[in-house]
Amino acid sequence: MSTYHPLTESEAIQVARSLTNIFESEGELVSREIGDGNLNLVFHVSQPSTGLSLIVKQALPYAKVVGESWPLTLDRARIESEALIIEERFAPGLVPKVYHTDNELALTIMEDLSNHVIMRQGLIEGGFYPKFAEDISDFLARTLFFTSDLGMNQQEKKLLVRSFANPELCKITEDLIFDHPYVDADTNSFDAHLREDANKLWADSELHLEVAILREKFLTHAQALLHGDLHTGSIFITPESTKIIDPEFAYFGPMGFDIGAVLANLLLHYASQEHWSPNATARDERRKYLIQSVREIWVLFESKFRALWDEHGIDRIAKTAGYQDYYLRNLLQDTIGFTGAKMVRRIVGLAHVADIDRIPEPAVRAKAQRLSLEIGTKLIKRNRQSTSIEQLIDIADSASKV
Amino acid sequence: MSTYHPLTESEAIQVARSLTNIFESEGELVSREIGDGNLNLVFHVSQPSTGLSLIVKQALPYAKVVGESWPLTLDRARIESEALIIEERFAPGLVPKVYHTDNELALTIMEDLSNHVIMRQGLIEGGFYPKFAEDISDFLARTLFFTSDLGMNQQEKKLLVRSFANPELCKITEDLIFDHPYVDADTNSFDAHLREDANKLWADSELHLEVAILREKFLTHAQALLHGDLHTGSIFITPESTKIIDPEFAYFGPMGFDIGAVLANLLLHYASQEHWSPNATARDERRKYLIQSVREIWVLFESKFRALWDEHGIDRIAKTAGYQDYYLRNLLQDTIGFTGAKMVRRIVGLAHVADIDRIPEPAVRAKAQRLSLEIGTKLIKRNRQSTSIEQLIDIADSASKV
Repeated sequence: MSTYHPLTESEAIQVARSLTNIFESEGELVSREIGDGNLNLVFHVSQPSTGLSLIVKQALPYAKVVGESWPLTLDRARIESEALIIEERFAPGLVPKVYHTDNELALTIMEDLSNHVIMRQGLIEGGFYPKFAEDISDFLARTLFFTSDLGMNQQEKKLLVRSFANPELCKITEDLIFDHPYVDADTNSFDAHLREDANKLWADSELHLEVAILREKFLTHAQALLHGDLHTGSIFITPESTKIIDPEFAYFGPMGFDIGAVLANLLLHYASQEHWSPNATARDERRKYLIQSVREIWVLFESKFRALWDEHGIDRIAKTAGYQDYYLRNLLQDTIGFTGAKMVRRIVGLAHVADIDRIPEPAVRAKAQRLSLEIGTKLIKRNRQSTSIEQLIDIADSASKV
Repeated sequence: MSTYHPLTESEAIQVARSLTNIFESEGELVSREIGDGNLNLVFHVSQPSTGLSLIVKQALPYAKVVGESWPLTLDRARIESEALIIEERFAPGLVPKVYHTDNELALTIMEDLSNHVIMRQGLIEGGFYPKFAEDISDFLARTLFFTSDLGMNQQEKKLLVRSFANPELCKITEDLIFDHPYVDADTNSFDAHLREDANKLWADSELHLEVAILREKFLTHAQALLHGDLHTGSIFITPESTKIIDPEFAYFGPMGFDIGAVLANLLLHYASQEHWSPNATARDERRKYLIQSVREIWVLFESKFRALWDEHGIDRIAKTAGYQDYYLRNLLQDTIGFTGAKMVRRIVGLAHVADIDRIPEPAVRAKAQRLSLEIGTKLIKRNRQSTSIEQLIDIADSASKV
């Protein structure tokens, strides 16, 4: 079993039983592969007699996107598993528990969360998640603070930076978020009606400079251990519970990249409301809820991050007068910039979001797409001048009123 | 021989003969330990019959500074050796050639440069080095550019970042440069007549904020492979040749840290001229020479770095309009800030410079020390507002005229 090969369903049962003590010894196990087969095998292994279950996730040695297939390191399974363990340590209860890791098989056996829904789908179905802003701001504040030089011994952090070198998955981000959307790249994919919008994007040199600067931060600013792919498809949710999954893109980068991923995906959903909330009053409500979520996430994040800093700052220098304000101002600016970059790539780049792509009427879809581009590009262009989350909200608000 | 132990002189001869083919097989070898015994053994191994020679440098498992001794990783020998090889690749002829590396014995066998002098000593003795600005700007521009995301494939760079994780030696810098000088720390060491100046330093909250920001860059901004300790004691020189030695502090950090180290040490020497150039006219000449060196180093560095960028920029994004100017402006600001930090620590921190410490008359020494503090603190405070190297020069000029 120990040499790498994609597991069969019966092998998944075998590892689930032999490598964990989740199941009672009696009682048959059932396995069902529930992954989309693009990157990973995901086996749901359960014991009908007891109702117990778990997930066996195995990385595949390739990625398939839109028909293409390219080799992809199995080391991402180790990274995902180690990231989950660190996230659980600093933000307990907000990630699936890891029961077992096998780096040779590129395998993580973990808590089954199938009583949750993927947040993107939940939002599309009109779900309200009153606990989300609280939970995600906890997750962000705690994982980012405690893996940064502010909250972790600086030498211990350097060893973690080394262990989370993740060149292959970072390359995907560098290409698909910071490069291809701003040029006529083969990987781009967008509706024909967006051709002129794309041309504008590709010719916008003010925008390109800001994207180059954001990319430089992604490449060099080893601020904290990021999740690295924190969109609403990486969040399992119920009204009472939030679980962050799939940190295979984890590496040490700029904090604002993770915060921005969350805000961007809420704003992409916001931009799609003409379809998902056809009733004008309901749409207004829905938009207010989403904007309020964006605001609360930042405001809660900031206050929690500051509280952690005051209470758990690792050294004398963290207490330097003015340093915290300087740091948070830069972090807000990064957040706003990365929010924008994460929106733009979902409209013209390779990977889209269901919130928008599933809008059937082309005219309505086009409005959502243009609104996303409008908000995204403005956020990118204004990030370095921003001083308050209200400026991000104003941009989203006023764009949607045009 | 392969288990680590400090070599004897006869073992140094043995490794020099068996691990390199520098010497002719006949002809006795002579070994002389010429290190200061604080961090490393340095054996000069020569063959009198042929005039051939080389250096066997071995790391010791401890550091001794001012009587104290603490354990220090032998891995720094690997780092030094790998850094020398990379520097030779990108800046050929400006570092000693590495003949052999043995990580187990923490050993580097390399080119003998004893026909050069240590630049700090050369400057103290009144040496002029007409080729220095050209050589050091070459070294800086080439090593920094080609190990950054601008000049090196970004995925290859990430693997190098991992290999140059250097927590123990970075810790020395973090403590001795960015922390201890700004607080009444046990490791600090300064003349009694500087007590009031030190008190001022420790109470200067504007300064402390800027130092905290510079430290954050040192901790997180993995911009390029730095030498990490590029003072004039790490430079072997003659009027015709420059060789950069001792990169055991190498790691991926902010480029301005290396450039600032060079400028700071020239300015510390500048601040000591009342003693070393007692004749007023000669002193004026000497100061002009030093200031002109500072200016030329930056100006040449900038033009070479921009030329490398234009010619060897690794990707489309490097060519984004405005990006190079943005990058160079930040780099100048970092350089000015780190120059200041490198000056202040040499006056009140643990490790001093001979340029100043060897001034026998306390009043003259005190003037040099206060001038260094004056220039250093101003550079730190003004770094983020700077737009030209002339602003650094004005600060040095006007401080020395008071």
